[in-house]
Amino acid sequence: MTHSAFAPSRLTDHLSAPAREAPASGIVEVMNHGRAREGMIPLWAGEGDVPTPAFICEAAARGLRDGETFYTWQRGIPELRAALARYTARLYGVPEAVERFFVTGSGMQALQTALRMVGAGGDEVLIPTPAWVNFSAAIGVGGMAPVPVVMAYSSDRGWVLDLDRLAAGITPRTKAVIINSPSNPTGWTATRDELAAVLAIARRHGLWIIADEVYGRFVYDVERAASFHDVAEPDDRIIYINTFSKNWAMTGWRIGWIEAPVELGPVIENLIQYSTSGVAAFLQRAAVAALDEGEDFLRQQVERARTGRDTATRILGATNRVRFANPSGAFYLFFGIEGVTNTRRLGLQLVDEANVGLAPGTAFGPGGEGFLRMCFARSEPQVREASERIAAWIARQ
Amino acid sequence: MTHSAFAPSRLTDHLSAPAREAPASGIVEVMNHGRAREGMIPLWAGEGDVPTPAFICEAAARGLRDGETFYTWQRGIPELRAALARYTARLYGVPEAVERFFVTGSGMQALQTALRMVGAGGDEVLIPTPAWVNFSAAIGVGGMAPVPVVMAYSSDRGWVLDLDRLAAGITPRTKAVIINSPSNPTGWTATRDELAAVLAIARRHGLWIIADEVYGRFVYDVERAASFHDVAEPDDRIIYINTFSKNWAMTGWRIGWIEAPVELGPVIENLIQYSTSGVAAFLQRAAVAALDEGEDFLRQQVERARTGRDTATRILGATNRVRFANPSGAFYLFFGIEGVTNTRRLGLQLVDEANVGLAPGTAFGPGGEGFLRMCFARSEPQVREASERIAAWIARQ
Repeated sequence: MTHSAFAPSRLTDHLSAPAREAPASGIVEVMNHGRAREGMIPLWAGEGDVPTPAFICEAAARGLRDGETFYTWQRGIPELRAALARYTARLYGVPEAVERFFVTGSGMQALQTALRMVGAGGDEVLIPTPAWVNFSAAIGVGGMAPVPVVMAYSSDRGWVLDLDRLAAGITPRTKAVIINSPSNPTGWTATRDELAAVLAIARRHGLWIIADEVYGRFVYDVERAASFHDVAEPDDRIIYINTFSKNWAMTGWRIGWIEAPVELGPVIENLIQYSTSGVAAFLQRAAVAALDEGEDFLRQQVERARTGRDTATRILGATNRVRFANPSGAFYLFFGIEGVTNTRRLGLQLVDEANVGLAPGTAFGPGGEGFLRMCFARSEPQVREASERIAAWIARQ
Repeated sequence: MTHSAFAPSRLTDHLSAPAREAPASGIVEVMNHGRAREGMIPLWAGEGDVPTPAFICEAAARGLRDGETFYTWQRGIPELRAALARYTARLYGVPEAVERFFVTGSGMQALQTALRMVGAGGDEVLIPTPAWVNFSAAIGVGGMAPVPVVMAYSSDRGWVLDLDRLAAGITPRTKAVIINSPSNPTGWTATRDELAAVLAIARRHGLWIIADEVYGRFVYDVERAASFHDVAEPDDRIIYINTFSKNWAMTGWRIGWIEAPVELGPVIENLIQYSTSGVAAFLQRAAVAALDEGEDFLRQQVERARTGRDTATRILGATNRVRFANPSGAFYLFFGIEGVTNTRRLGLQLVDEANVGLAPGTAFGPGGEGFLRMCFARSEPQVREASERIAAWIARQ
């Protein structure tokens, strides 16, 4: 039934353009294609195969039993904010004020909140690509324009961020640059000097940096990745976004955090109030346990991912028909197969013909077209089996 | 340290206008003023004093033990969507397609998502006021303009929505009208005829209706409040927003839902993906328990609120120096005190001089200035004591 006096229209025609035009994730297409297949090995998501450890779950259950089911602080419970400050100070060797930390309903919400702060309709945000698809989509939903800065891949140097190209992308509408290091999907991990150079550009042009250092602990040659914490001052225009998802196998929990200059506190509090109004207090108890007691678990996770990486690169490398940079961080192998350029179709094909689920590189924006992303933060047998299936598929071509 | 070449500026000067200008909730000011006071009776929030019942908490704990800690469906787990469809069909006596239901990380997120769908920068949304403060704030954060339609209060008729005034507020930029019935804060509850009239206006002008029927079960003279379900077709442009918070004492959990035309599904899925990416699966198990096994608890909650209402209206009415409409729905008494017009100051004063925490009417927009909001969904002794303290305070003036 249509109440318009004119020709029948679709309901979605009457939605706002940013909502209507929000792209479906390019990963979801493959997932929907493969979800129900028997024996499928799903390596398309950024998620391990280990459920949240018991000591974390028990802290949440305890919070529930203690009746922590009422409204709580918009910025997060004081105990969690204090734990975040301790954790960050310990990790980066810098003093950290509790007031710099804000609990969010996922790393995604941290990103959304950061974007709302830095810009509005018509503004631009720079993103080195290939990049996590949600960056550009969330920018678009906020009415802003994502401006990709395509990173170059070469077999000798791997992925390289060209700082001149980054600076050349700046216009009067540019409000921020998102730096995701270690990078999902490429594994590129910025050096301290590169971060200092990005910071210098941002300072010069008055830009915000949205620093996604979610994979900062998943590195394979050093103790931790370089961080803007190593080069910045507390009042630099840096908004760190982070999550409990990856380090502590808490993907499903939807808890993340923002670290930002103290002065932004009231604004962040209001944006949380008017989006989800905070995170369940009993869930925050689990997050405290993760930070305070989760180092051993995290070390095991990183070792597991290292084994997965070594397995995947060994098996796929031996085909001599794939190209990739051995990832120094994050837990993805981003690789191309000789002669294949349309990886959107390839993703669907590998589901059908190899029973392996990978994310097509097209989902990650300009520069990702010829690649596929495999999550290797899984059990060694699973990563091995998946890699062998892909190698066998390649051999059949 | 400032890196600008110009005069030192505040960091917040460099934030987007919608973020910077998001208003602090007018309730938070009083809460911060009173939070730590000994013996304070806090009736400022829209929250009862009973923790979530055990059968609901246990369902969440079970989900945790079952390892439901991974990423899940953006739209909500199938079991919860099915439970929502059953619940809604049962309540309103209409068939309901499972595909109309979407799980959100709070009723607030349902509202934010609805607003993102209906409009963007420069658009207008009509809101009868006094109204829940988060409506206008969330509209503003989205870059849109809230347009209040002030409701009239009179001692004989209570609060009345003037439909001509509503229609007169429509401009070419108007995208939607928010109807919150039963109303927070006034308790106004629309009749079926009034809803039909609003729907006719919306149809005529091609507007979306955002139907906040969160308090639809908290009514005191009938089984349930009239709903747009009683007068609308499935493809009318109505987005229902709802929450588990009030009915099942789950304020802290942050779980809500959207009901909307099926055609909007992909858009809603994307907006969830790019804001919080879904709700923890193990929490959704608790929501299923609430819907399927929570009717007895809900009935007790409503009876408790009825007792609170009767207590508060009896004691405050006996002073002969307050004015209010006896609320037929929701769980707030919205009342004015003779001779007092500045209720923002009064809210702070009642904390200091009566040790009672109320929300100032100024927080609820135009029409609310001379009123205070008291939540009466609390234990009878607490509501009685608070009402007596206020009555005593009035007697001292």
